Amino acid sequence: MKTIQVELAEKRYPIHIGSGLFEKLPQFLEGIGWGRERRLMLVADSHVSPLYAERVLKPLEQAGFTVGQITHPAGEESKSLHTLERLVEDCIRFGLDRSGAVLALGGGVTGDLAGFLAASYMRGIPFIQLPTTLLAHDSSVGGKVGVNHPLGKNMIGAFHQPAMVVFDTDVLKTLPEREILSGCAEVVKHALIWDASFADWLMEHHRQLMALEPEVTAEAIERGCRVKAAVVSQDEKESGIRAILNYGHTIGHALESVSGYGAFTHGEAVAVGMAGAALLGEALGTATEVFPFTRELLAAFRLPTHLSPVWAEEELLAAMKRDKKAKKGAYTFVLPTGIGSVVLQHGVEEAAIREVLARLRGGESR
Amino acid sequence: MKTIQVELAEKRYPIHIGSGLFEKLPQFLEGIGWGRERRLMLVADSHVSPLYAERVLKPLEQAGFTVGQITHPAGEESKSLHTLERLVEDCIRFGLDRSGAVLALGGGVTGDLAGFLAASYMRGIPFIQLPTTLLAHDSSVGGKVGVNHPLGKNMIGAFHQPAMVVFDTDVLKTLPEREILSGCAEVVKHALIWDASFADWLMEHHRQLMALEPEVTAEAIERGCRVKAAVVSQDEKESGIRAILNYGHTIGHALESVSGYGAFTHGEAVAVGMAGAALLGEALGTATEVFPFTRELLAAFRLPTHLSPVWAEEELLAAMKRDKKAKKGAYTFVLPTGIGSVVLQHGVEEAAIREVLARLRGGESR
Ligand SMILES: NC(=O)c1ccc[n+]([C@@H]2O[C@H](COP(=O)([O-])OP(=O)(O)OC[C@H]3O[C@@H](n4cnc5c(N)ncnc54)[C@H](O)[C@@H]3O)[C@@H](O)[C@H]2O)c1
Ligand SMILES: NC(=O)c1ccc[n+]([C@@H]2O[C@H](COP(=O)([O-])OP(=O)(O)OC[C@H]3O[C@@H](n4cnc5c(N)ncnc54)[C@H](O)[C@@H]3O)[C@@H](O)[C@H]2O)c1
Ligand SMILES: [Zn+2]
Ligand SMILES: [Zn+2]
Repeated sequence: MKTIQVELAEKRYPIHIGSGLFEKLPQFLEGIGWGRERRLMLVADSHVSPLYAERVLKPLEQAGFTVGQITHPAGEESKSLHTLERLVEDCIRFGLDRSGAVLALGGGVTGDLAGFLAASYMRGIPFIQLPTTLLAHDSSVGGKVGVNHPLGKNMIGAFHQPAMVVFDTDVLKTLPEREILSGCAEVVKHALIWDASFADWLMEHHRQLMALEPEVTAEAIERGCRVKAAVVSQDEKESGIRAILNYGHTIGHALESVSGYGAFTHGEAVAVGMAGAALLGEALGTATEVFPFTRELLAAFRLPTHLSPVWAEEELLAAMKRDKKAKKGAYTFVLPTGIGSVVLQHGVEEAAIREVLARLRGGESR
Repeated sequence: MKTIQVELAEKRYPIHIGSGLFEKLPQFLEGIGWGRERRLMLVADSHVSPLYAERVLKPLEQAGFTVGQITHPAGEESKSLHTLERLVEDCIRFGLDRSGAVLALGGGVTGDLAGFLAASYMRGIPFIQLPTTLLAHDSSVGGKVGVNHPLGKNMIGAFHQPAMVVFDTDVLKTLPEREILSGCAEVVKHALIWDASFADWLMEHHRQLMALEPEVTAEAIERGCRVKAAVVSQDEKESGIRAILNYGHTIGHALESVSGYGAFTHGEAVAVGMAGAALLGEALGTATEVFPFTRELLAAFRLPTHLSPVWAEEELLAAMKRDKKAKKGAYTFVLPTGIGSVVLQHGVEEAAIREVLARLRGGESR
């Protein structure tokens, strides 16, 4: 087992990564001072719940904890105020009070949704992230939680740090291949923004990671979490540097929003966005020759780096304008300065973005 | 004009109280460092908007600010996730981004709703409270924001402190009498929990306050805000002493919940709750002879101190059990230790509460 500490101004919390960790949950809870009088509500989606809820419930119940259980439909559509209202209802009926806590067992959807439940239930109770997707090595760390609005992704949310993250890597075995690759996109992102040697390591080990070879998988998750933890500890509420974690997400979110959530996995959309950011960086002169390696690395993970013409340019631009990172109407992008480093660039002109969208559509980025 | 500073661990903010203050909003914004590039969204309800939105909009627009406007239906029913979703839609369409802010113009309903909008929109933007009810001297200070769930009041929310509170007392003139009296209940609460001399002063000046005589009104608001600010600054997130602000609210909230929001004003429900807390304190021996003065003071403000038998005891008890202050199933009450001081009492037994409910129904408390 590997443990990383996330150090924040007012708080620190551990990330445990390894095999067979759900069995040790009672000890981990003890480690953060949680006693049996704290009622727990386990939230999972309709795919994850039948697979793994028991694995979490059993050791906790055997150790004397009282655990309720909520299952929400799998899929991005569940990240909504509507689902939140249903979750709150279940928590009230279960008798969860301010001394209670939430366990978020699942991918980024459950983590964001159940995290926002914890952030807003009775004005905030603690929660623990139990990620079950590779992508969730990213989403489970850092405290960004929330739901979507029909007009935009993650429009309603909070910063609410988990009390702990327990990543039992055994659960990844059942993950559909496309979801593994989606998670690889965020692993690649962490390497590209922060750590060139991590990027090279990923290029070398991409086959083992895609095959979920245990050692490589745990190392990839650990290194990815280290990047995330380092950035978040410098800027918990995204007033500055944290924005670099949105590398690839400006175009990525626009693509998700225009295509309707579900057509792309999050990672696929972000992969296209990182290809676009590399092209944009080269065009604006923040970096040279980052696109070829970026494309090669993403392609190694069978992630897309081009844009189908069915997604209309005007709609993508409109969606980007609505992006949370857009300040006062100008476009803001995270751009590469090299492999392993990026910069936050404000006031990017529309013409440059149109050019990049055109190139993403052309043969160039295939 | 009177100004109180609310001092918190990481933040301080001013409360301005006086006549004609909305005209000075541009200066006040300058005072907290807000420039014209910050888009503002004014939220008000369907009663307040036609009366006072212009008074807020005009000086700001003349000073060069861009201000959007949302009107939501008046009434407690608007404190819902459903209304929140509509507000978020309007904010997105207006182009409000992370550099924007919310102005909450209204009573506690608008303050709580628009405050939660600000707390959760794009994971949190700043907001200003512009209270228009007497009750809102309480709700606008301290950062508790949120919405109701069909199963319970204020079940979904956040702690999100305003950047400023501007109480223009001129707007109280149009307040329906019943709402004035509702606000008086929270003024009385602040006196009863903290400041015996304030309670005596209220007994002496109740007629002038109910008539909204300007000097007395401003002084009552100021003294009430001082109590609130003092308590909140000691315990921003209600981990301890702040719970005393819920004096009268355990029974009060149960009554609102059982009667369906709307049958009672918030203040009326809290008045019955304070009468109940006084009786309970006497029964449990935390205080002696607090009930007669409590009843007299509430009656002076024409507030109810008895309970109609139509509200079933079992339902009231069930609602109290769901109360956020209930920890692990036991009843928790704020009880008087005298006039001007209270104590937080855990583990209050059901039998004692049943007795008090019976006495509140009887002639005794009329
Ligand atoms: N909060 C953050 O910082 C942050 C960061 C990145 C992404 N996100 C969010 O994360 C979400 C995407 O996360 P995701 O890709 O994990 O999506 P997801 O939670 O929907 O999981 C993907 C699919 O895999 C299934 N699944 C999960 N674990 C499984 C397992 N072990 N075995 C079999 N099936 C399993 C799920 O049921 C779902 O169908 C998006 O909503 C995105 O906005 C948040
Ligand atoms: N956040 C807190 O700390 C806190 C504290 C106490 C109460 N509250 C909440 O406050 C709410 C009650 O607040 P309220 O009593 O102000 O209710 P409210 O906001 O509904 O206002 C009462 C009525 O008066 C009208 N009104 C408001 N200002 C007016 C004016 N100047 N002239 C004419 N009409 C006017 C409103 O339209 C409404 O019909 C409850 O939801 C309660 O939970 C919150
Ligand atoms: Zn992402
Ligand atoms: Zn109140």
